[in-house]
Amino acid sequence: MVFHRKHILGLEELTAEEINTVLDTAASMKEVSERDVKKVPALKGLTVVNLFFEPSTRTRSSFEIAEKRLSADVLNFTPDQSSVVKGETLLDTARNLEAMGAGIIVIRHSMSGAPWLLARELRSSIINAGDGSHEHPSQALLDLFTIRQIRGDIRGLRVLIVGDIRHSRVARSNIWGFLKLGAEIRVAGPPTLIPKEIEDLDVKVYYKLEEALKGVDVVIMLRIQKERQESMFFPSLREYSKLHGLSHEKLRQANDKVIVMHPGPINRGVELSSEVADDVNSVILDQVANGIAVRMAMLYLVASGGRSV
Amino acid sequence: MVFHRKHILGLEELTAEEINTVLDTAASMKEVSERDVKKVPALKGLTVVNLFFEPSTRTRSSFEIAEKRLSADVLNFTPDQSSVVKGETLLDTARNLEAMGAGIIVIRHSMSGAPWLLARELRSSIINAGDGSHEHPSQALLDLFTIRQIRGDIRGLRVLIVGDIRHSRVARSNIWGFLKLGAEIRVAGPPTLIPKEIEDLDVKVYYKLEEALKGVDVVIMLRIQKERQESMFFPSLREYSKLHGLSHEKLRQANDKVIVMHPGPINRGVELSSEVADDVNSVILDQVANGIAVRMAMLYLVASGGRSV
Amino acid sequence: MVFHRKHILGLEELTAEEINTVLDTAASMKEVSERDVKKVPALKGLTVVNLFFEPSTRTRSSFEIAEKRLSADVLNFTPDQSSVVKGETLLDTARNLEAMGAGIIVIRHSMSGAPWLLARELRSSIINAGDGSHEHPSQALLDLFTIRQIRGDIRGLRVLIVGDIRHSRVARSNIWGFLKLGAEIRVAGPPTLIPKEIEDLDVKVYYKLEEALKGVDVVIMLRIQKERQESMFFPSLREYSKLHGLSHEKLRQANDKVIVMHPGPINRGVELSSEVADDVNSVILDQVANGIAVRMAMLYLVASGGRSV
Repeated sequence: MVFHRKHILGLEELTAEEINTVLDTAASMKEVSERDVKKVPALKGLTVVNLFFEPSTRTRSSFEIAEKRLSADVLNFTPDQSSVVKGETLLDTARNLEAMGAGIIVIRHSMSGAPWLLARELRSSIINAGDGSHEHPSQALLDLFTIRQIRGDIRGLRVLIVGDIRHSRVARSNIWGFLKLGAEIRVAGPPTLIPKEIEDLDVKVYYKLEEALKGVDVVIMLRIQKERQESMFFPSLREYSKLHGLSHEKLRQANDKVIVMHPGPINRGVELSSEVADDVNSVILDQVANGIAVRMAMLYLVASGGRSV
Repeated sequence: MVFHRKHILGLEELTAEEINTVLDTAASMKEVSERDVKKVPALKGLTVVNLFFEPSTRTRSSFEIAEKRLSADVLNFTPDQSSVVKGETLLDTARNLEAMGAGIIVIRHSMSGAPWLLARELRSSIINAGDGSHEHPSQALLDLFTIRQIRGDIRGLRVLIVGDIRHSRVARSNIWGFLKLGAEIRVAGPPTLIPKEIEDLDVKVYYKLEEALKGVDVVIMLRIQKERQESMFFPSLREYSKLHGLSHEKLRQANDKVIVMHPGPINRGVELSSEVADDVNSVILDQVANGIAVRMAMLYLVASGGRSV
Repeated sequence: MVFHRKHILGLEELTAEEINTVLDTAASMKEVSERDVKKVPALKGLTVVNLFFEPSTRTRSSFEIAEKRLSADVLNFTPDQSSVVKGETLLDTARNLEAMGAGIIVIRHSMSGAPWLLARELRSSIINAGDGSHEHPSQALLDLFTIRQIRGDIRGLRVLIVGDIRHSRVARSNIWGFLKLGAEIRVAGPPTLIPKEIEDLDVKVYYKLEEALKGVDVVIMLRIQKERQESMFFPSLREYSKLHGLSHEKLRQANDKVIVMHPGPINRGVELSSEVADDVNSVILDQVANGIAVRMAMLYLVASGGRSV
């Protein structure tokens, strides 16, 4: 098992074999989290910088816990708002962190492509923790990992992603990941939130949730950003919930052991009803738990940087 | 010496024996802080999350230092303001932290009872770092510890708590703690800031500070929140200070070796004069120092979770 | 090699020998950062508090990485805005941190002299991370270290500092440091930004950059604070840049191997052109890298506190 990459930027560029290497490594890391002493010295003396230009307590916290379990030295670097104005500043900021000895930079940025810019210009390893509405690889990898743990294999599964496909980096990364591992992908949502280009991928588009749900094995509900309503992408939360939200009744259209996922944080009563969120089919908290193991694997693999693992 | 609790939520529910176990354990922890290398591996590999919904640099810092001295992995989780709106969100947030592997969650929340909700629903250990105007057990335990270090025993001491009894979680936790360990409790302050219900407890109420001070061994001055003035609980800071603030002159009413305490941060010239704050009788900085040892003990005991120590 | 100081507050009070001890120690620390495991147990169990009253992600991050490489327990303490109003609060805050067991307090404060106040009143070691427009010793020490690494010796070098000399603690600390180690110092900038008193030091003042540059070995460009323009210290950024900014053309006046420095963050196109910033002569990123080693040395030396090293 070999992983030759120094960076993990997105799932579009990873091969199925590389994705499987991350998932296999995550399985080993999960064992660490089940030990009495949940810590290994793998990254001792390595400085990992969490460079978050967008606020994110959840993803940052998950990376921070993963880094500490690997015994890395962690620096949370939240740039001042004032210093974010110009594009060039990003590179100067990152070059400073590299000069301070950052072995790995975990970056979240509102600008699609920002992690690639850093990977091209710096010697540090770069992990993309979400760039614009482009990719969010750690989320997709933990989704894949969670399903693989339950179903053993991704191949042949019917996976439905519901909601704001247009602005969702989670959707984009998941589409790449599931397609590469051989799943069948459907998307559903209001027409205003499903971009035309999606049809270029090997994806089936639905505008009626009930229909989309027929025979699916996995449903991924995306978080709705309430700001989208103000931008007129949909008329009201109530209507959104009624048409595109997941209820127990609608879920009956899916396969028996359908798995319900959500990247969090959930809006109870909007994307899904409280009953569905807390149901046995829901693996939302397993996703969170697996996020630690998957991020440990990502950090470990980019730090190993191409050496066999 | 056995401590069977997985959580420390408040002093009302602790027995005298349990309180003494915390204080005895704190005495051992204090020795750690006096060593050359002030660190023990007791909580190595355990993730402790400081979940503070109210800003608090002091209490959070004290917990953070205590956690690091026990070699825990520390995550400071400050929820976004936006995600604090609904009550249900607290539980979803906490369940996420549990899923991420939080062994202990130290929570401060403006809602009385919030730590009990978490203790009921989660597998993580919960420590209450202050809930509404209800309880603040670590503060009361460090107050008890500080007095026990000086006087050897709490029993029979006359303890006076002065100020805003109505809104003070420090007062409430201290009343429970001192009563359980056999002290006599008096409270004093303006009538608007002393709630009627206080008389149901075994507490003597005074409205004149000079009278209340007669023969006391310990005075705990509470911090005055300047917002209370705007809410008309008292007419002015100057008048408050004159009637209810502690001066050298008034302090002469108390016993010779009276101990002066304050949970901090102090408003010099309001609750107490600068001379009183810096006097030999004042143990305000000892309280801060002991806070580390007491919080180490609390963390250690809930992590041991009922095993004999 | 002996370092007797418990604090590092400013370069005015250090002897040439003491400065050289810091630089020699930094050279050893730099080796740590080049190892596979970039960590030594030197400060294990020591709590270091970064007490920053002014926002600074860069300097604080550099100290934080240095502290973690020495295995210290790090606490970032950012006081609430509300608690910063009165001067006395600074001392109460610091005494609280001392009581919590802070072995070293790294302080940045807008008030010149604040670190000296703490050094006088506390038992903790104090490191000045910038006080008002007074001193910024870690920056000057890393500048000296960077030049010494390139040129071997500081003695006899011609060093030019350009820009807002009036408000710059970097300039002040550098002037002391370079003079003590035997360099010749020039300053240049608009007359409004060069204070009269500077002439009392052994410093040559220039108002024309081209003239000042003639024959210099080192140019330190200071960051221009855009607020100064609003305060009428100079008419416009464009005019400032034209007259006092560094371009390739102007730089031809200097010696062949002239070293270009900047404390960062740079304003590209204001203090210096992008070409100059990224040129081989520029050591701006070496300064950042050396900042870690120099700060490790400072922390290590004050912790050793007078014992021979």
